[in-house]
Amino acid sequence: MTHPLHALEERILDEIALARHIGVRAREYTGAQLVLAAPLAANSNHHGTAFGGSLFSLAVLAAWGLLGLKLAERGVAGEIVIQQSRVQYRKPVTADFYARCFAPESDDLDKLVQTLERRGRGRIALIATIEQDGRTAVELEGTFAVVRRA
Amino acid sequence: MTHPLHALEERILDEIALARHIGVRAREYTGAQLVLAAPLAANSNHHGTAFGGSLFSLAVLAAWGLLGLKLAERGVAGEIVIQQSRVQYRKPVTADFYARCFAPESDDLDKLVQTLERRGRGRIALIATIEQDGRTAVELEGTFAVVRRA
Repeated sequence: MTHPLHALEERILDEIALARHIGVRAREYTGAQLVLAAPLAANSNHHGTAFGGSLFSLAVLAAWGLLGLKLAERGVAGEIVIQQSRVQYRKPVTADFYARCFAPESDDLDKLVQTLERRGRGRIALIATIEQDGRTAVELEGTFAVVRRA
Repeated sequence: MTHPLHALEERILDEIALARHIGVRAREYTGAQLVLAAPLAANSNHHGTAFGGSLFSLAVLAAWGLLGLKLAERGVAGEIVIQQSRVQYRKPVTADFYARCFAPESDDLDKLVQTLERRGRGRIALIATIEQDGRTAVELEGTFAVVRRA
C-alpha cells in the first residue's frame, strides 16, 4: 500500500495543473499535522520574496490535503472545496517555504463526519500557516465544504 | 511609449515567476477598471473547474496592477504588497476566467498619495472579482501596503 503522504503528493500533482509549477512537495504527515513544501525560485517575485498567490495556494493545499487524509482515516470519501478564507501576510518569505496545517479537534471531525453521514454535505474551518525562522509569516483561515462521495 | 496595459502584462510576466504558468493576460484598462484574464486549462483541478489558488492569484494581481496604474497616473512610484485579504468562492469557475478590479474612489486615492508623500508609506483596500456568465463567482477584498520609491 502506498504511503498516504506519497499518495497525497501524487494526487495534488495529478489533479491540480498549477501544483507542478508551484513545485508542491508533501513533506510530513504525522496524523496531527500535514506539511507541504515549495521552492522559492518557482514562486518568487522581483523582490526575491514569495508571491502572495503562491503562499496562499500552498496553504490552501495543506488544509485541503489534511482534511482529505483525516476523512479517509474515518472511512469517508468526499469532494473538498474551499468556500471562503482570510489570509494575513505578516512578513515576507525569503526562502523555500513550508505550509503546515494542524488537524482539527477530534470532536469537530466527529461532528463533520456525522453531518456528512446524515446530510451528505458539511463544512469545517481549518487554519494553515507558513513559517519562516520559527515565526509565522502567513496565516490562512479557511472554510471548506465537503460533499460526500457515494 | 508603450501602452500601459501591455507594459503591465510584461511586468507581471517578468516579475512573478508563477504568472507565466497561470497564463496571465492583461485584457482591458479604462482608467476606472483593470481586467486580467487566464485560461482554465492551465488552472484547472480534476473537476474541470478552476483551482482556488489560481483564482486568488489572478484577483490579487488585478488589484495589485490596478493600484500601480492609478499611482503611476499621479506620478507616484511605489512598492505594493498584499497585507491581508478575504476571499469568497461563490460558485465554481468552469471556463477561461477574468479578474476585474475597479479603481478606488478618487478621494481615497488622494488620501493615499498624501500619506505616501508625508510618511513614505500607506495602505488601501481594494475589491477584485471574478465573474462568470455575468455573475460574481469569486470576490476578493484585499488590503495593500505601499512603500513609496524615492
